[in-house]
Amino acid sequence: MHRSARNLQRFSADLSKLWAAQRSSSLRYICPAPGLQLRPLRMASSESFRIESDTFGELRVPSDKYYGAQTVRSTMNFKIGGASERMPIQVIKAFGILKKAAADVNKDYGLDPKIADAVIKAADEVAAGKLEDHFPLVVWQTGSGTSLVLLHVLQSSNDTFPTAMHIAAAKEVHEVLLPGLQTLHDALAAKAEQFKDIIKIGRTHTQDAVPLSLGQEFGGYVQQVKYSIERVKAAMPRVYELAAGGTAVGTGLNTRIGFAEKVADKVAALTGLPFITAANKFEALAAHDALVELSGALNTVSVSMMKIANDIRFLGSGPRSGLGELILPENEPGSSIMPGKVNPTQCEAMTMVAAQVMGNHVAVTVGGSNGHFELNVFKPMIIKNVLNSARLLGDASVSFTNNCVSGIEANTERINKLMNESLMLVTALNPHIGYDKAATIAKTAHKEGLTLKTTAVKLGFLTDEQFEQWVRPQDMLGPK
Amino acid sequence: MHRSARNLQRFSADLSKLWAAQRSSSLRYICPAPGLQLRPLRMASSESFRIESDTFGELRVPSDKYYGAQTVRSTMNFKIGGASERMPIQVIKAFGILKKAAADVNKDYGLDPKIADAVIKAADEVAAGKLEDHFPLVVWQTGSGTSLVLLHVLQSSNDTFPTAMHIAAAKEVHEVLLPGLQTLHDALAAKAEQFKDIIKIGRTHTQDAVPLSLGQEFGGYVQQVKYSIERVKAAMPRVYELAAGGTAVGTGLNTRIGFAEKVADKVAALTGLPFITAANKFEALAAHDALVELSGALNTVSVSMMKIANDIRFLGSGPRSGLGELILPENEPGSSIMPGKVNPTQCEAMTMVAAQVMGNHVAVTVGGSNGHFELNVFKPMIIKNVLNSARLLGDASVSFTNNCVSGIEANTERINKLMNESLMLVTALNPHIGYDKAATIAKTAHKEGLTLKTTAVKLGFLTDEQFEQWVRPQDMLGPK
Amino acid sequence: MHRSARNLQRFSADLSKLWAAQRSSSLRYICPAPGLQLRPLRMASSESFRIESDTFGELRVPSDKYYGAQTVRSTMNFKIGGASERMPIQVIKAFGILKKAAADVNKDYGLDPKIADAVIKAADEVAAGKLEDHFPLVVWQTGSGTSLVLLHVLQSSNDTFPTAMHIAAAKEVHEVLLPGLQTLHDALAAKAEQFKDIIKIGRTHTQDAVPLSLGQEFGGYVQQVKYSIERVKAAMPRVYELAAGGTAVGTGLNTRIGFAEKVADKVAALTGLPFITAANKFEALAAHDALVELSGALNTVSVSMMKIANDIRFLGSGPRSGLGELILPENEPGSSIMPGKVNPTQCEAMTMVAAQVMGNHVAVTVGGSNGHFELNVFKPMIIKNVLNSARLLGDASVSFTNNCVSGIEANTERINKLMNESLMLVTALNPHIGYDKAATIAKTAHKEGLTLKTTAVKLGFLTDEQFEQWVRPQDMLGPK
Amino acid sequence: MHRSARNLQRFSADLSKLWAAQRSSSLRYICPAPGLQLRPLRMASSESFRIESDTFGELRVPSDKYYGAQTVRSTMNFKIGGASERMPIQVIKAFGILKKAAADVNKDYGLDPKIADAVIKAADEVAAGKLEDHFPLVVWQTGSGTSLVLLHVLQSSNDTFPTAMHIAAAKEVHEVLLPGLQTLHDALAAKAEQFKDIIKIGRTHTQDAVPLSLGQEFGGYVQQVKYSIERVKAAMPRVYELAAGGTAVGTGLNTRIGFAEKVADKVAALTGLPFITAANKFEALAAHDALVELSGALNTVSVSMMKIANDIRFLGSGPRSGLGELILPENEPGSSIMPGKVNPTQCEAMTMVAAQVMGNHVAVTVGGSNGHFELNVFKPMIIKNVLNSARLLGDASVSFTNNCVSGIEANTERINKLMNESLMLVTALNPHIGYDKAATIAKTAHKEGLTLKTTAVKLGFLTDEQFEQWVRPQDMLGPK
Repeated sequence: MHRSARNLQRFSADLSKLWAAQRSSSLRYICPAPGLQLRPLRMASSESFRIESDTFGELRVPSDKYYGAQTVRSTMNFKIGGASERMPIQVIKAFGILKKAAADVNKDYGLDPKIADAVIKAADEVAAGKLEDHFPLVVWQTGSGTSLVLLHVLQSSNDTFPTAMHIAAAKEVHEVLLPGLQTLHDALAAKAEQFKDIIKIGRTHTQDAVPLSLGQEFGGYVQQVKYSIERVKAAMPRVYELAAGGTAVGTGLNTRIGFAEKVADKVAALTGLPFITAANKFEALAAHDALVELSGALNTVSVSMMKIANDIRFLGSGPRSGLGELILPENEPGSSIMPGKVNPTQCEAMTMVAAQVMGNHVAVTVGGSNGHFELNVFKPMIIKNVLNSARLLGDASVSFTNNCVSGIEANTERINKLMNESLMLVTALNPHIGYDKAATIAKTAHKEGLTLKTTAVKLGFLTDEQFEQWVRPQDMLGPK
Repeated sequence: MHRSARNLQRFSADLSKLWAAQRSSSLRYICPAPGLQLRPLRMASSESFRIESDTFGELRVPSDKYYGAQTVRSTMNFKIGGASERMPIQVIKAFGILKKAAADVNKDYGLDPKIADAVIKAADEVAAGKLEDHFPLVVWQTGSGTSLVLLHVLQSSNDTFPTAMHIAAAKEVHEVLLPGLQTLHDALAAKAEQFKDIIKIGRTHTQDAVPLSLGQEFGGYVQQVKYSIERVKAAMPRVYELAAGGTAVGTGLNTRIGFAEKVADKVAALTGLPFITAANKFEALAAHDALVELSGALNTVSVSMMKIANDIRFLGSGPRSGLGELILPENEPGSSIMPGKVNPTQCEAMTMVAAQVMGNHVAVTVGGSNGHFELNVFKPMIIKNVLNSARLLGDASVSFTNNCVSGIEANTERINKLMNESLMLVTALNPHIGYDKAATIAKTAHKEGLTLKTTAVKLGFLTDEQFEQWVRPQDMLGPK
Repeated sequence: MHRSARNLQRFSADLSKLWAAQRSSSLRYICPAPGLQLRPLRMASSESFRIESDTFGELRVPSDKYYGAQTVRSTMNFKIGGASERMPIQVIKAFGILKKAAADVNKDYGLDPKIADAVIKAADEVAAGKLEDHFPLVVWQTGSGTSLVLLHVLQSSNDTFPTAMHIAAAKEVHEVLLPGLQTLHDALAAKAEQFKDIIKIGRTHTQDAVPLSLGQEFGGYVQQVKYSIERVKAAMPRVYELAAGGTAVGTGLNTRIGFAEKVADKVAALTGLPFITAANKFEALAAHDALVELSGALNTVSVSMMKIANDIRFLGSGPRSGLGELILPENEPGSSIMPGKVNPTQCEAMTMVAAQVMGNHVAVTVGGSNGHFELNVFKPMIIKNVLNSARLLGDASVSFTNNCVSGIEANTERINKLMNESLMLVTALNPHIGYDKAATIAKTAHKEGLTLKTTAVKLGFLTDEQFEQWVRPQDMLGPK
Repeated sequence: MHRSARNLQRFSADLSKLWAAQRSSSLRYICPAPGLQLRPLRMASSESFRIESDTFGELRVPSDKYYGAQTVRSTMNFKIGGASERMPIQVIKAFGILKKAAADVNKDYGLDPKIADAVIKAADEVAAGKLEDHFPLVVWQTGSGTSLVLLHVLQSSNDTFPTAMHIAAAKEVHEVLLPGLQTLHDALAAKAEQFKDIIKIGRTHTQDAVPLSLGQEFGGYVQQVKYSIERVKAAMPRVYELAAGGTAVGTGLNTRIGFAEKVADKVAALTGLPFITAANKFEALAAHDALVELSGALNTVSVSMMKIANDIRFLGSGPRSGLGELILPENEPGSSIMPGKVNPTQCEAMTMVAAQVMGNHVAVTVGGSNGHFELNVFKPMIIKNVLNSARLLGDASVSFTNNCVSGIEANTERINKLMNESLMLVTALNPHIGYDKAATIAKTAHKEGLTLKTTAVKLGFLTDEQFEQWVRPQDMLGPK
């Protein structure tokens, strides 16, 4: 075996062009670790399939696809769920990043730069999502995601797939979820500021309560979203840990000392995210607690979203028979004959997303709990759900912001009317006329359907001016 | 010592001796699983513990308790969750029923009637719940519930515990859940009848919609509860299947042919419920799909309850700033100064119960899915949750009925006001004045905050009398 | 313009014009909810968009698409989740069926046959799935699914969407899920028969237990799948109930008496499934308990599948260091250097599906519980998850059957070896040599790592021949 | 001090009377929410009930109980679930702490020290759990927990109950959960160290894989528990935030500026935990995201526990027909005739707990998502589940450690046998004899059921000595 072949064997890795080289050389099957097995294209104008074979026999592979027999075999063996159940593109892109990083590291270890550069070029295309059509596999296949990994040679996917899972999850969180939550946060904060002087009736147990400002009410939502962001971030340290280098069972057999750290460094450099090598590779292969934890954070975010969107739809209910304190923006043409009826469709989309995320979380929990020995084999299902939750929450936050929150206006006329009619302000009279007279006012007003002021004056307990002076909702918005 | 007590001690009580007797007698193998190991009481006034021993050494057993070393050992080994996590009393009672049935059958097979009758007498007490203090074990122990089963001799609990699970679940369903749901159903049906002529505004997307009667709205709830009952009943056929006779792995080793069928018959006779022997004992030991299915029915019931209780609390919200269509009964003294503020506490209890049942269902699902080979070992956890769900839903239904539903009154003044103010009735004018004029009325009314009638007359499109004649909500409650 | 296109334009297409016609004609109110608003194609060779407008302004609509401004508006307002989150095609097909049925009924009520027939023709195409590209909307939109329903005229989708949900769910159950389960059932039953004489060690608590036949073990799985089918069927009666005819809030306003029943009849005739009109339309719009119930059945099925697939993967574990009792078929080329290592990938796919279904069920549960007043607005999310669960379980059952179950072989050599080595058969010696000697044999065998037979003979308690005669696993497979 | 004041002091205060005193004194509004309404005992030897009354009429109160009419009313109105569904004692103790802190702060604000000290004394007893019998209320009552709060004066419990929830949760986490997890962590770490030189076969997909050390395998568990601790801690910052001072709707109406901060400081001082006042009181009352988040952390812990306990039970399966690599300690007397059969009961308890925690988490999630406006009314249910999860996981960790993990021994004979028989080491021969010969050895060994060594020598490819030299599992445990 000549020297470069030994290098390949020892240092691993090569890829599409490597494979081409392998076919006509003694290099075949010598490329062990995290290589990229892009199939050579034998473009043929007159035929739409090429014949490849595996140990089970010949298979027809679409002639314009990079993938090979293993992938075709998998699509035949796992006809589950149809086209919408494809492995998420984010995972495939993450593999591109990982493969680029691995090739780079292998170059440092002595891999022929020509080969390494070819791999890197191909990996770049994968990372850019250009080769999506070449990855037709569904989620519902082998639980290690192996069948996806046409991207390696004679090598376990056991450490590369979880690595891609973490890269994909972290990127989705940073590129979709957190920006989406921040957008929503800022819009709610702007509304809280805009509404800070609008005093309204509070509601506890869905019953009338003492007043607060509409700005304070929205301030509660702002806090929920602020903490949503913190919660997601708090889950990330363990997601930044990469399994790469653990190889088949976590020992790192067949890698070099330092390989794991170097790959994590490269991935960090490529993504701008603080990836590090996993503290314990056995844990990183056999469990996906980090993604269960992240899913738990997303679940908490969904709980916050459900609360906020529910409140907004109820506060915007009407136009005549609801609470009617908020005017929601009209995004779709409503009934031309029914003015003012604006369905809170963005709230509905958001609450549906929240329910989905709660469900996804249970799927991730069940999958995460069922790992055995050195490998958890619910990997594709877990990452599908985590990515779905992150994407849906991020997208829905932006949609909810742009099409609902930003356009919310306070129906101050209605808000004031409810405040004016409320009986909850009567306690403000206690220090001035005593508890008993105050209670009499409230009871009379309730019985006769009058306002407090009307009743108080009618009962002769105080004057209009005194009422205005003593019952000041704006003085009831905080401690003294 | 009283003679019958001595008899109990001598004959029935220490069944390890009975078993020894069986070994050298013609009784061999005919009283296998379902023996009763009631310990002889060595009552001693001067000491509060007696010494028993197992293969691990001596143990102090409270001298006034029937249980023996095995139970004490278990309480020492499973200090998990404290006193509130005891094995549900319903399971223990069910064991009483099962043991009685088994002793009866064994008598037919030739067991000494004195022994059998002593066992039956003791089992009766267990079934009546009189011996609860003698069963101190917690849920969180061996997953087959074995430690509970001080009630058998040298015999696997593998078929008796699941049998007790099914008996307990079926009884709880029939004694608590179904009566509770029926109570709620009837109360809601009475309200639907009472409210059948009260016409109110409908709400879709929480927005004003075309009218319906309050009776129709409650009729929807009636249907949900009616179907709740049907759903629970639909799950019962498989709960009525009993594992008894399957013994250790489902083969029925060491039982007589016919034993399983006879025991099921006896249990059916004792409970008045249509228990039968399980069609497949392997399935009955290794899986608890029947209880997962029942839990799924309870989950659907909880979904219905959440909807109903949520609606009622929102429709009863107020007194001034809510929807205010329903007046909920006042059960607790509210604020003496704040008349009309009635917290919907029964709705809150019910929705909390609903959330709990949804959670219990996931616990049951996870436990049910994790059986291995010939035995599912999540038995105590599964039955605890199923019983808890059934009990909570049944109890909450009664509480909700008695303290809320039965006392609900319609706030017809408010309902009529909302109807009167609504813009949703404008479509009724289309056939009379045309679409364009109708739309103009609605838009003007919305803009100026007026009623349809006022606006229509003001615009000169029709007269008061015509409006009354043409816009008749009572004609909008069904197809023509 | 092609003649049929012109026909479509003239007759069926713009039903907003039809509706306008209805308003001033005797057709009024006879074609209410279920119209078909197929947009006229203004095919233009030089441009890829046509301009449509709604009350918000002009919009560019792809010129080769039937849909109109409302759909484009929705895609702009709900950019959530991307292409994989499209409304399930099954729902769109179901709308085709419903629209055909409604047009047919309306023809009976007097709708111009030319119009009706054009609608029917178009609906047929929708039902056949030919127009999928014309329905680009995502799940995450208005919770009533309204935006999808470009298929109606100035009419609420509140009853048509839930009708389509039930049609779609019922068809998926009958066309994918039940056949899939039946396939799996039959394959498992065949294996149970094939393995009926293979006696093996049982396992309880994952520990060695008394024997059973491999056929009995598979018989447990058969029973689970048999009951899976029963469970799904037991949930269907309420799924067969159709909301059509309830219109906006369940009252059936604007429909004719009998319309609901006739539409259900037509849908039943078109699908061959026993659809009926919902007993209570208020419940049918405001709740989706029937689909929560169905989802609960699917959840129970998933629990069964998890058990079965887990067992099979553990029984097939090895080749040397696992239980090794089953030989699973090899579907993918394994490591060429590692013979006998067959990853249980079909079990992994199935268990991932099971976890997903459990998660989907929670999403459905949460969505189902959050309906308010006259409408549940989690409709698209609910049906997406129910259809996904049904499809995944059905597909996975077929894949699991074809690629795993059907090819399972018993490793009789291994099974016999384990039986032979087992200590669990010692109880069979009790009647012959007494308990004490039997126990001595077992203890000695355990201590010295020998078989029972070797030990028994070595201890001089019996002969080889006696052992063979007395210890007969085949006599331990049932009651006597 | 006049007579009524002395009574208040003596009986530690009927604070409804105190409030009356406040109304006519300078104390007004300085002792707002956090009063203590311990009822005066009117001990009467001849009667077991005393008569109290509320606005609904007279009620019989057990004469030896501190509680009053409101509590009795609640027990009558919420007969749900029975005795095992009591409000967790931890919540009651937490109220003691809160009340003590509040009284202390109010003393600083000018509350009569005699009254304050009497309150503090009573609160101390509550905090110590001495008065548990005086709190008979169940979880399933008003969703704000109000009925529990006989501990306040005419004041909303809206901020005190959530404060007690956070105190109780934080204490349970620190007193039960974290110590339990640390105990488990340390025991697993000790085993990892003990087993570090025991080399065993790895298993991926439940199939034989390349070797690792048993210490490495346990090291993965150690990491999971280490991260469990980190996860729980990461959720605590938001649990340390206290709602106290938010009063009815979050505005802090009727409190003094600084009250909230001072109370949090006092609670921190009393508990030794870093409690602070909530950053936003509106969020703190209307949502319980912090507890949903904590529950999510517990859910992730339960996922880790399920993995660990599952592995240990499978690795300990046997004695003859399982994997048999671990010898689990025998805690219960097994079958005297069946040596070596040790049911993994502690694993079963732990996995049942894990399933329960997953279910509890869904209940918490559903409850947390359903808050409306200024108050979440699933409070008792939420805290019940969070406390249950924390307790169960903490207790089970200790039980699992003491009764299982600490006593685990490696079955080195079995481990070595499996290693010796494994075919997975053949790859180590590649560099020495080439891929083809290595593959031939593996295939032959698999076919003939021989070991690699035997086969290799038999085939003449190498000598015994060479095999020993080249195939060294100890060199396969890490990167090179």
